[in-house]
Amino acid sequence: MKKTAALLAMLTLFSTGAFANEKLTLETQGHFAAGGITIQREGTYDNKKFGGWASPIEQGQSYRADHAIVSYQIPARAKNAPLLFIHGYGGSGLCWEMTPDGREGFSTLMLRRHYPAFIMDLPGRGRAGKTSATTTLTPKADEMLWFDIWRLGEYPNYHSDVQFPKDAETLDQFFREMTPDVSAHNMKTDVASISAAIDKTVAMTAKNGSSSKNANGVVLVTHSAGGFPGWLSAMGNKNVKAVASYEPGGYVFPEGEVPDPMPSLTGTASGVPVPMEQFRRLTEIPIVMYFGDYIPEEVTNKLGGENWRVRLQMARKFTEAINRHGGNATLVELPKLGIKGNTHFLMSDLNNGQLADLFDKWLREQKLDK
Amino acid sequence: MKKTAALLAMLTLFSTGAFANEKLTLETQGHFAAGGITIQREGTYDNKKFGGWASPIEQGQSYRADHAIVSYQIPARAKNAPLLFIHGYGGSGLCWEMTPDGREGFSTLMLRRHYPAFIMDLPGRGRAGKTSATTTLTPKADEMLWFDIWRLGEYPNYHSDVQFPKDAETLDQFFREMTPDVSAHNMKTDVASISAAIDKTVAMTAKNGSSSKNANGVVLVTHSAGGFPGWLSAMGNKNVKAVASYEPGGYVFPEGEVPDPMPSLTGTASGVPVPMEQFRRLTEIPIVMYFGDYIPEEVTNKLGGENWRVRLQMARKFTEAINRHGGNATLVELPKLGIKGNTHFLMSDLNNGQLADLFDKWLREQKLDK
Repeated sequence: MKKTAALLAMLTLFSTGAFANEKLTLETQGHFAAGGITIQREGTYDNKKFGGWASPIEQGQSYRADHAIVSYQIPARAKNAPLLFIHGYGGSGLCWEMTPDGREGFSTLMLRRHYPAFIMDLPGRGRAGKTSATTTLTPKADEMLWFDIWRLGEYPNYHSDVQFPKDAETLDQFFREMTPDVSAHNMKTDVASISAAIDKTVAMTAKNGSSSKNANGVVLVTHSAGGFPGWLSAMGNKNVKAVASYEPGGYVFPEGEVPDPMPSLTGTASGVPVPMEQFRRLTEIPIVMYFGDYIPEEVTNKLGGENWRVRLQMARKFTEAINRHGGNATLVELPKLGIKGNTHFLMSDLNNGQLADLFDKWLREQKLDK
Repeated sequence: MKKTAALLAMLTLFSTGAFANEKLTLETQGHFAAGGITIQREGTYDNKKFGGWASPIEQGQSYRADHAIVSYQIPARAKNAPLLFIHGYGGSGLCWEMTPDGREGFSTLMLRRHYPAFIMDLPGRGRAGKTSATTTLTPKADEMLWFDIWRLGEYPNYHSDVQFPKDAETLDQFFREMTPDVSAHNMKTDVASISAAIDKTVAMTAKNGSSSKNANGVVLVTHSAGGFPGWLSAMGNKNVKAVASYEPGGYVFPEGEVPDPMPSLTGTASGVPVPMEQFRRLTEIPIVMYFGDYIPEEVTNKLGGENWRVRLQMARKFTEAINRHGGNATLVELPKLGIKGNTHFLMSDLNNGQLADLFDKWLREQKLDK
């Protein structure tokens, strides 16, 4: 066991080191908005009247809302597998683009492996702040809760072997990555924006004349609460050619096959029924899920452990459901591979280079990069 | 005159074309938080109690707020002049990183010219959404007003020769770049976050052993309402070695030298007095300002023209004030150079390649790149 750990540590060093001194070469980069609505007020806009900055005369004016903002980068020698990254609760696309201790973010690690990166800020989060909702924001002190829920440890103690630096500055940066949700929390709005982002990503990356069956599709890469809209988007848009999900929070099941609800200290995890013809879509594309460390099998009194215990157990049932209907779903429980210490934010953990290698290997095994 | 225009058009084409097929090569990229406070609730946090996601038990918990988020990229063969980009009202750093018609953003154009790019989302905007304020957001239809104020034309008519594509999709993307401000609108908070970003930028880019007098400082690049906190930051932080401002909205003057207020259709522009020993700092560094087209000299009934008429006139007085105290300020009125059609968002206008060349030339003339 110690040997395995040492070998893995070496591999991790190598996998980071192999790229550390290399330049990152891009074809281009930019951002775009995807999805959304336009609110139009009745009447005629009057160019000659000024109502004041805080109280514009809305008559005849419009207001764009409920779109996502997508940041993209196309690397040199790009593989034909653009990755569309979808964040979870409490944050923005930032979680894919940085680490709290200043190392390169997961999307950059994948760019260095020649995968185009498209990173979403979902409607109402980050730079996609214009929404149709009326929302009141007020500071809510909740960081110790997230320390626990996201399995850094039990506040103020870190898990001893956690893949997260234990200095105060890193923790400060980690919490400042968070940003509120000013949307109406409408799942349909999220899925519509993801679907629009998928189509735009395909239009920007499609290779003419490719004969591969994997040509011209997007690989969704989801995290946590981004997992559930990810499954809905994959069921609803044929341009999704695979899904990789890091600790998804929710799952769909065929009607009549939904597992019993699973209660825990932080609430009850329930599968969501969908018609079989929709679920079948998830059996037609490769799917992989990754879960980190510190997730118990039995009931405990630990907030983070409890929250992910029921979600991991639901992920096992989800994997079984896809595969018993002829699909290709893989559930990777990292500790079972000897990869220890991962928090809920696997993508920015200290071993994210190793996790990028794992993901790259899966994409190549599934021939999604061709 | 026609010859000049044709020559400029050719130069523009060349300046875009020269980079169009080149790869963008980076050393590294990432994001960090800068500045901010930590709110700490009294009492002891209890790891065993769960209050629910929407209503956490705040006792003993903390909440980070009022920081900025900075996106950075370091190009290969980086010049010793990192650019720190500060956005204006109604948006985020996105305005520097994209164009609404899908061409490369201004920060990318400067990266291709080997300037490191650091792009801020100021506190309460974009991905820096955690603030100490209680804010209620509600949709306000105001896009036609911005069409006018930002000098695309007089809604629904574009200026005939405007450097902004006239298709509906571009306008849609332009408005979706906007994002609300959920901060307490505190200038001190903005300046503190900019100052923290300046120091962090210097720490990340400083070249050891440089003997240049321009070594190890930051060039602030501000836009619109970002102009005013830019001047305050330059006066307050010795690590600012130059300021370039695109259509700044506000100005400081030495006490006793503040020009008469200038009324306009959209309000009165007033200079803000500061002690002479603070103002003197602005005479010690190179400063350049750029203004676009469609700004009248005389009073009109056009919203955009009026708004920028008084601000341009105040910029002239500001330039005079700096230079009469021995400074090095340049005010570039682009139409006077024959560069026509620029809106208030010069950095993403169709001729942003030409504007990047102009800026690059100024930085080299001032030897800021050494």
